[in-house]
Amino acid sequence: MNFPSKLVEDAVNEFAKLPGIGKKTALRLALYLLSQPADNTQNFTTAVSRMRSDIRFCDNCHNIADGDLCGICSNALRDHSTVCVVENLRDVIAIENTEQYRGVFHVLGGVISPIDGIGPEQLRIDSLLEKVKQGTVKEIIMAISPTMEGDTTIFYISRKLQEFNQSIKITSIARGVAFGNELEYVDELTLARSIASRLPYESYMTAK
Amino acid sequence: MNFPSKLVEDAVNEFAKLPGIGKKTALRLALYLLSQPADNTQNFTTAVSRMRSDIRFCDNCHNIADGDLCGICSNALRDHSTVCVVENLRDVIAIENTEQYRGVFHVLGGVISPIDGIGPEQLRIDSLLEKVKQGTVKEIIMAISPTMEGDTTIFYISRKLQEFNQSIKITSIARGVAFGNELEYVDELTLARSIASRLPYESYMTAK
Repeated sequence: MNFPSKLVEDAVNEFAKLPGIGKKTALRLALYLLSQPADNTQNFTTAVSRMRSDIRFCDNCHNIADGDLCGICSNALRDHSTVCVVENLRDVIAIENTEQYRGVFHVLGGVISPIDGIGPEQLRIDSLLEKVKQGTVKEIIMAISPTMEGDTTIFYISRKLQEFNQSIKITSIARGVAFGNELEYVDELTLARSIASRLPYESYMTAK
Repeated sequence: MNFPSKLVEDAVNEFAKLPGIGKKTALRLALYLLSQPADNTQNFTTAVSRMRSDIRFCDNCHNIADGDLCGICSNALRDHSTVCVVENLRDVIAIENTEQYRGVFHVLGGVISPIDGIGPEQLRIDSLLEKVKQGTVKEIIMAISPTMEGDTTIFYISRKLQEFNQSIKITSIARGVAFGNELEYVDELTLARSIASRLPYESYMTAK
C-alpha cells in the first residue's frame, strides 16, 4: 500500500499490529481519527498509554487492579472463602458479567502446556497454595477451559491442594450441553459427559 | 460490561469509539496491549498522536501531507497538467495503489449533498477553479462515486469549469461491468450504461 504521508503510514502500521486488524481496517481507523477533532485522538492515546503504564496487578488474585488490591478482592461484601481459579483476565470479566458469582478469583496466567514450554512453575500456583494454607478458603472452583491443557492443570492443582489439605472442597464448573444448543448437533464427548453428570430434576430447575 | 479496573474501562471505551469496533473487540485490543511489552504501547500511542498533531494538508491538492506540499504534488516526474478530482483521501490512496495514474489530484473533501447540509461552498471547488484559471491544467478527470450526490457534484463542477474555459477537457472514470463480475448478476443501470459507452475492440484491448 502506498501512503501519501509517513505519519499516516506509521500510525497505520501500528494499528495493524493489533490482533484482528489488517492494513485496510488500520487505514480506516487512522483516517477516522484524522477526521475527528484533535482532542478525541488526545483522549484516546492518553487513555491507552495510562492504562499500560499505570496498571497494577492485584497482590491477592493477580487480576488487573488500579491499586494494591483489585475491586473484587477489596470488596468486603464478597465471599472470600470461595475462590474461582481461572486462566486469564478475560475469564474473570466473562464470569463477572454473568453477575451470578459472589466469591473471589485467582488468575493463573495460563494453563500447563508443555508444548508451549509452560510448566506449573510459570503459573501462579504457589500463591494459590499459600492462600489455601492460611485456612480461610473453603471451596476452590476450577473454571478452566475443557481442553487437554486445562484438564491437566485442574488435575495438577487438585493433587497439590489435597496433599496438605484433605478437607478443602474442590469443584469444577459443569460441562454439558449449552443453552440454545440442539441435542443432535452436540459433539459426542460433551453429550456423553452431560449424561454422566446428570442432575436431579429439582436442582436443575433451581439452578436455572 | 463490568471491568475490574477503571484504567482498562477507559481504554476500552476509547477503543470502542472507533468505527467498526465494539466493546468485545475493544476489550480484546486493550488486553492485547497489556500482554505486550510497555514499549509497544508507547510506540502505538506516539505514532497515533503524532499523526493527529503533525499532519498537514497539501496547499495545492488538499491531500494529507508531511510538509507544505504532499508527495504527489512535490513530485516533478508526475504530470501536473492532468488533475484527478476525488472525494476524499481514501480515494487518493485507492487510485495510487493501482500504480497506473501519473497525474496529480484534487481532494474535494466530500460531495454536494443537500440532505447532509453540504453545499458547493463547503467543498474545495474554488481552489480547483483557481488552479484551472492559471492555465496549466489540460484535463480534469472526475473520479467520483456514481451516486446521485456524486453525479450532482460532477455536473456542478463541469458547468463551473466550462463557464470560463471552454477548451479544457473534462472526463469521468468509466462506469461499467467490473472485472470478474458475471453479466447476469450486474444491475440493469450499470449494464445499460456499459452498452451505451461501449468501446472499439482495439481500444479495449490496449486499455486492458
